[in-house]
Amino acid sequence: MNGSDITNRYFLEIEYDGTLFHGFQKQQNTRSTVQEKLEMALFELTRQTLIVICAGRTDTGVHAMGQVVHVDLETVWSVERLHAGLNFYLKNAGISVLKVYPCDLHARFDAKERFYEYQILNRQTPSPLLVNRAWYVFRPLDIDLMSEACYALIGHHNFNGFRSSACEAPNPERTLNTARVSQEGTMIKLNFSAQAFLHNQVRIMVGTIVQIGLKKIDVTCINNALATGLRKDAGITAPPYGLYFVKVSY
Amino acid sequence: MNGSDITNRYFLEIEYDGTLFHGFQKQQNTRSTVQEKLEMALFELTRQTLIVICAGRTDTGVHAMGQVVHVDLETVWSVERLHAGLNFYLKNAGISVLKVYPCDLHARFDAKERFYEYQILNRQTPSPLLVNRAWYVFRPLDIDLMSEACYALIGHHNFNGFRSSACEAPNPERTLNTARVSQEGTMIKLNFSAQAFLHNQVRIMVGTIVQIGLKKIDVTCINNALATGLRKDAGITAPPYGLYFVKVSY
Repeated sequence: MNGSDITNRYFLEIEYDGTLFHGFQKQQNTRSTVQEKLEMALFELTRQTLIVICAGRTDTGVHAMGQVVHVDLETVWSVERLHAGLNFYLKNAGISVLKVYPCDLHARFDAKERFYEYQILNRQTPSPLLVNRAWYVFRPLDIDLMSEACYALIGHHNFNGFRSSACEAPNPERTLNTARVSQEGTMIKLNFSAQAFLHNQVRIMVGTIVQIGLKKIDVTCINNALATGLRKDAGITAPPYGLYFVKVSY
Repeated sequence: MNGSDITNRYFLEIEYDGTLFHGFQKQQNTRSTVQEKLEMALFELTRQTLIVICAGRTDTGVHAMGQVVHVDLETVWSVERLHAGLNFYLKNAGISVLKVYPCDLHARFDAKERFYEYQILNRQTPSPLLVNRAWYVFRPLDIDLMSEACYALIGHHNFNGFRSSACEAPNPERTLNTARVSQEGTMIKLNFSAQAFLHNQVRIMVGTIVQIGLKKIDVTCINNALATGLRKDAGITAPPYGLYFVKVSY
């Protein structure tokens, strides 16, 4: 997938407002995907028809603070020119290129760890300032129970019960390195990291943890869902707009 | 302005996204002001034509995390019913009522201290996730110089140089209790408090502090502008969308 023959590969770190896009991946019937916008900006700048490969596809509504993509240019480019040029063509498009650097790795296959954050607003009233930025949960959440739930998810498991029916991964086993809850005032954050996640895995883990925090289901349901591998044994799928793809390590 | 004869006065603490409104104050030719929306929601709920009085008017684009208003109802209301009912009629309107309580004070005249925060994103690239939420300043800001500028503003001064030409206050003297800069990563926050501010005073103080932080003007310009009282001796007016009306103490 990569080797010394690739000399014009660039990595881009990007931030985007997921609310504005039908997810990351290019689709036949819509132009408003992150990939499409990025490839259009690359074409405007370089006049080359290029394909970007991302570290992790995000669904409609899911945000990124540090998505990573790579692109193979036909010629060598100055990093500064590429950076400034892309941000020029992406101006007001809801995508910002944070960093550009030459790199011979593969954005998807060489990723060592992916980091996600989920933001929950837990108070009596919704926040107009956090519309589309956090999941508003108005009943009080029990942080200790949520912490127990996180702990039960950490490690190597069959996460078949925690993926969408549309997930095409042949092997549902994954190793969850981090699952942590933290609270600052009325804002609750859940942080996860793993080399790879299944489709909707983070959102289903969050939905389950929140239902446990609300005492609607018991924390033992996590071990049960991990054991049975049945989707019905895990909790609901949390909404996309509280989810942020934070960063990738290589 | 207040007294024991007022028995149905309620205080509301409200949050709003200033981007969605032409400021707080009701206007003849537009309905999209915070006051108009609040009074409409009060009418829907109570069938009474009421006027709300706020602690501090905010301009178009300026947000509130804790604006305070009072309203005199014709009858006694349950605080819970008033709270839930108002949020029902304000749903998806960009305004949220955080708290309701009976109170015989005057929201504007009895305010002891008003607190504002100004958020600045200081990094190389804009943030799609903070559009309309922070002022994007891409050149590096010198926090120590900004801190010196804050210090020079604190105290009792003639702030005539730091108010808009539209400001109608007869006396331009104010006492600034707090002016403080803090930094967390690429986010810089400026916090101010005073019993009262002049029109645009916070935004002009921020614009001046930022120009000092960029080394475009010297920190001594603060004392000069305070001494001359001339608007031209202070700095630019910072954009409204980085400004938050945080809270009021009574």
